[in-house]
Amino acid sequence: MKGEGTQSAVNGSERMMWTSPIMSVREARVAVEEEPAESMLPFPSSASSSNEPCNEMTLYYHDILYDDINNTENATSAAATKPTVLSTTHWKNDTYFGTLVVFDDPMTVGKVLPMAGEGPAARAQGFYFYDKQESYTSWFGFSIVFNSTAHKGTINLVGVDLMDDKTRGLSVVGGTGHFFMARGIATLRLDASEGTVYFCLQMDIKLYECYV
Amino acid sequence: MKGEGTQSAVNGSERMMWTSPIMSVREARVAVEEEPAESMLPFPSSASSSNEPCNEMTLYYHDILYDDINNTENATSAAATKPTVLSTTHWKNDTYFGTLVVFDDPMTVGKVLPMAGEGPAARAQGFYFYDKQESYTSWFGFSIVFNSTAHKGTINLVGVDLMDDKTRGLSVVGGTGHFFMARGIATLRLDASEGTVYFCLQMDIKLYECYV
Amino acid sequence: MKGEGTQSAVNGSERMMWTSPIMSVREARVAVEEEPAESMLPFPSSASSSNEPCNEMTLYYHDILYDDINNTENATSAAATKPTVLSTTHWKNDTYFGTLVVFDDPMTVGKVLPMAGEGPAARAQGFYFYDKQESYTSWFGFSIVFNSTAHKGTINLVGVDLMDDKTRGLSVVGGTGHFFMARGIATLRLDASEGTVYFCLQMDIKLYECYV
Repeated sequence: MKGEGTQSAVNGSERMMWTSPIMSVREARVAVEEEPAESMLPFPSSASSSNEPCNEMTLYYHDILYDDINNTENATSAAATKPTVLSTTHWKNDTYFGTLVVFDDPMTVGKVLPMAGEGPAARAQGFYFYDKQESYTSWFGFSIVFNSTAHKGTINLVGVDLMDDKTRGLSVVGGTGHFFMARGIATLRLDASEGTVYFCLQMDIKLYECYV
Repeated sequence: MKGEGTQSAVNGSERMMWTSPIMSVREARVAVEEEPAESMLPFPSSASSSNEPCNEMTLYYHDILYDDINNTENATSAAATKPTVLSTTHWKNDTYFGTLVVFDDPMTVGKVLPMAGEGPAARAQGFYFYDKQESYTSWFGFSIVFNSTAHKGTINLVGVDLMDDKTRGLSVVGGTGHFFMARGIATLRLDASEGTVYFCLQMDIKLYECYV
Repeated sequence: MKGEGTQSAVNGSERMMWTSPIMSVREARVAVEEEPAESMLPFPSSASSSNEPCNEMTLYYHDILYDDINNTENATSAAATKPTVLSTTHWKNDTYFGTLVVFDDPMTVGKVLPMAGEGPAARAQGFYFYDKQESYTSWFGFSIVFNSTAHKGTINLVGVDLMDDKTRGLSVVGGTGHFFMARGIATLRLDASEGTVYFCLQMDIKLYECYV
């Protein structure tokens, strides 16, 4: 993650959209801290006394799955387990039931993948696995890692990606640094895909409990 | 999950037990929404100002593990990894240390498995793996997915199933739709089992933080 | 976990450091309960109205990875999956991308591993997997299981271990028993390591939301 503090320059034309007016002073203070996760004092939670999120953003998640052949230059994820025999042999359609994928995926403010040498706005590091028989559904556990001049810290998420639904939600269960103790929801929708090798998810992240 | 909205009819004789009196108006409003996860405005949390849960229910979790032979018709889970060599070769008793199981399990209001064609009250989608040397213990990460006329949404859980204990608790770390931002505890106890192929857990779910 | 209630005697010279002054009466009450996870009534949350944690402790996490050869006597963790081909074949440095390790690790109050026959202060049961291309980074999901005379219950954590950072944080997303519904942060730092077989992490756990 070192050297990824170039997000502002790279994505200069599409700045990250943050809207947390009541938090601006504290955010400014946090932004200059070197190690927010440990040095930060906890503030009283701004657990929503209104209907508005205390912080929100939209990021695009790009997953380029290793195809075992020729995309090693670009791949950002790879399957750590094969589909179960139950999935491949006996069910009508292979839905990859049991395949666990580990990823280190770029997340961007705009829809376009970073070009070589460009730093993404954040990285999503974690896993998903396919867990549905008749159709595609996966379960995610991952962290969004920010290490830019604007934002440092992590957001931790878990939940089920019900791919049959147009939109579906994951839970933000915690965070560190700039997102210390945060809770909220990430709403996913498919933005683009190319066969089984690439897909892009739009993630609308809304935090309803913020400590900073 | 399409077409599983038949829970009321199927389980007509044993209705799901919900007790959330102070939430009834909001719940009624949520129940008619098409896409609660994204369209719902967050309400102030009813984080327990009393000792009572803001929502509770009991569901039975049925896990039918694929046996590699002849239960492909009924199996709802399958091992994605084998026990580690450490477990099978060197320890006295094989406790499946390292075996990771992916599941898409039915959850029911009563203790009986749904018959063919019947829809369950909900589905549990996720994984568990065995992580104990001398005895059986597993770690769970999963979502309970509701898609009935009565309830739409998900509940996300993580935690350790200490099988030696008569009861043990998992954490409800978040939810969507009807269970937007929920937190609470699921208390597990073994209800039934058949060899290594089937087990049924009673899950008493109590939510202590509710947004809807 | 049976028979591990000997923590007080074993670690008599370095008592667990708890500092939760405002919680002492409730804690005392919980400590004598047989099955806190289910029998305990939830209390109003003491969600931090100040900058101070409502509970904190430091524990050392010891991971002894099975080396496939000769440490079967001591090993407390083992790899359930191999590194992906993407990691071993095509990237310059093998960062174990895709290796998933299941652990049942002792946690101690002091830095020293328990001797044979001694019970640890707690056990950490769960998994981590390597999820970074250019360097070492892993994602954790696990529970800290307490079963001593002083403390019974579990703490559930998820998050990313950014090993390049001197300190990094995981999220405490819930708990049971003594740590019913807890939320907080665990700050990690490397305390010791021996090749690829052993490492010790210092975990400073601070809870900011406590129900008991």
